[in-house]
Amino acid sequence: MNAAGAAATDPIETDAVIIGAGPVGLFQAFQLGLLEIACHIVDALPQPGGQPVALYPDKPIYDIPAVPVCTGGSLTEGLLLQLKPFTPRFHLGQTVRQVEPQADGRWLVATNRGTRFLTPTVFIAAGVGAFEPRPLKVDGMDRFEGTQLLYHPATLPVVTGQHVLVAGDSDEALAAALTLSTGGQAASVSLMHRRDVFQAEPERVQAMRDACQAGRLHLVIGQPAGIGTEGDRLTTLQVLEPNGSQTPLPVDRILAFLGLSPRLGPIAEWGLALERKQVVVDTATLATSAPGIFAVGDVVTYPGKKKLIVSGFHECVMAAYGAVPLVFPGKPVHLEYTTSSSRLHQLLGVAARGA
Amino acid sequence: MNAAGAAATDPIETDAVIIGAGPVGLFQAFQLGLLEIACHIVDALPQPGGQPVALYPDKPIYDIPAVPVCTGGSLTEGLLLQLKPFTPRFHLGQTVRQVEPQADGRWLVATNRGTRFLTPTVFIAAGVGAFEPRPLKVDGMDRFEGTQLLYHPATLPVVTGQHVLVAGDSDEALAAALTLSTGGQAASVSLMHRRDVFQAEPERVQAMRDACQAGRLHLVIGQPAGIGTEGDRLTTLQVLEPNGSQTPLPVDRILAFLGLSPRLGPIAEWGLALERKQVVVDTATLATSAPGIFAVGDVVTYPGKKKLIVSGFHECVMAAYGAVPLVFPGKPVHLEYTTSSSRLHQLLGVAARGA
Repeated sequence: MNAAGAAATDPIETDAVIIGAGPVGLFQAFQLGLLEIACHIVDALPQPGGQPVALYPDKPIYDIPAVPVCTGGSLTEGLLLQLKPFTPRFHLGQTVRQVEPQADGRWLVATNRGTRFLTPTVFIAAGVGAFEPRPLKVDGMDRFEGTQLLYHPATLPVVTGQHVLVAGDSDEALAAALTLSTGGQAASVSLMHRRDVFQAEPERVQAMRDACQAGRLHLVIGQPAGIGTEGDRLTTLQVLEPNGSQTPLPVDRILAFLGLSPRLGPIAEWGLALERKQVVVDTATLATSAPGIFAVGDVVTYPGKKKLIVSGFHECVMAAYGAVPLVFPGKPVHLEYTTSSSRLHQLLGVAARGA
Repeated sequence: MNAAGAAATDPIETDAVIIGAGPVGLFQAFQLGLLEIACHIVDALPQPGGQPVALYPDKPIYDIPAVPVCTGGSLTEGLLLQLKPFTPRFHLGQTVRQVEPQADGRWLVATNRGTRFLTPTVFIAAGVGAFEPRPLKVDGMDRFEGTQLLYHPATLPVVTGQHVLVAGDSDEALAAALTLSTGGQAASVSLMHRRDVFQAEPERVQAMRDACQAGRLHLVIGQPAGIGTEGDRLTTLQVLEPNGSQTPLPVDRILAFLGLSPRLGPIAEWGLALERKQVVVDTATLATSAPGIFAVGDVVTYPGKKKLIVSGFHECVMAAYGAVPLVFPGKPVHLEYTTSSSRLHQLLGVAARGA
């Protein structure tokens, strides 16, 4: 039933599963926390923060209310700090593949890494989808992923004695190539890009050219066209050059930095009402067409919807209240304020004023 | 046509008038600014910030997104700083009395101080209403307001040789009585409250009792029951004591700190569709039943409405986009992001990244 035939263990029972650890997913967890709804958060990326952290961590954002300027990074820090009293449990680097209704009205949620949850509520805060690395498109390359082929590794591997190829033209790609070429442990370090133009900062491009000049780094202009193997090992990459000729390049390890691309993925196949690939929700509760499944942020549509973080934050409030009847059937809900409610002060771990 | 028979000058022509300078009114001005809609902001209080600043400026707020803790004061500072590029014009210490449709489709907005505006759009961000001082209820007292009777004065008047009465039991009231009694210029200083129990901090209550002990301050337990005048001057206040007896108190000046109380006031009489004293709005545009009048924040109602600042912020976005067709008829509107739009960078006065 679950992906990859993994995990014979019992699923994790919880009040809520949030799909997406971007700004809206994080604030959803906070709003659920205020209502004493426990949650688990799943995200495809290796760290929380979503699109602003993955795509533009240092670019200024000017329209978060009362925050004249922040970055994806500082926004995420603020949201994580705010969320801390509720100790949410993160399941990063994995994507939700299946969401299946159970006989008892709950949902069984399973990720591609075999993590499973049983929950009365699911919150889709998936933005434009799970950010997945753009693949290096060569026949037969798939099976080396995670071993000889690494996509956007957060830390560089040890490459002593290896022929290393870095693919990409971003700052991240060039920085990786330069670091590996400086250590001197690798047998060779090559940087591959389809043309001799780079997206990286001019200073870094210059440093790359200097390293090539000094013979520490080898610049390969071309595209992958095929692979060569010996037994189970990848040994060469055929590079198609702009003039049409092919050159074999010896490789023990490929680090690919080809960018991240969002995929709505299986969410589109869960039978939820969609409109132009957006999830249709009720503005009063952010409920989708499936009872117990809510959706918030850029993934949703309703009349007038604007894809702004501030709107996502509001939607988290509505969805959290919308979920209460499913998590605590029959419990009356009253709006309380964090300035004045001693229950909320206790939850947040702050001393009551004047106490 | 306008209140108090004032202002023969032409009304101010503008794109938008925002009623209320609380957190939501301020963010409304910011959102309008991003869409190049100029605005004027009117508020009954002498400073921006609304209820959080007027009622609990130092109390922590924990649920502003990505801001783990702030106060009404710091929240307002953040919003004002964010808004600065758009140089909004504030009209403080006045309340909007009239909103009248004009033949050209615009609205004539008039305040109690005679300020008038001609505008295609009005944004009601009035929260629970205009905060007005609770009055000292005695027949004939009205006509001394602003001269011998001052409500919540921001700075204390010069009282040399005067018999001064301070009414109230708050920190603000006791602090005023203590300051005036310490200077020694007044002929006498009395503090009046209906019972011998005070809301002020214990230290301040003790300081007040010490001042009474020392004969610098006179504590009067009772309620105002009538006034005595000589010509146009107020000379005595009849005080009804708990035992039923009345005592005349000589007064040249009364400072009343009886608290601020919100009044929805004339908004309730503008013919807008209301539900339980809340303004009914369309969630897609925050449009009220009157074309060109929008409402945001705690004053509105719609299915699921939660009276939270974060929801008000989202409503500002929707209302700003809702107003565009009225301010710029026929202009196409595209959502742009403050991270990436060079038009928005120019408006915000920030250097484009990489430029």
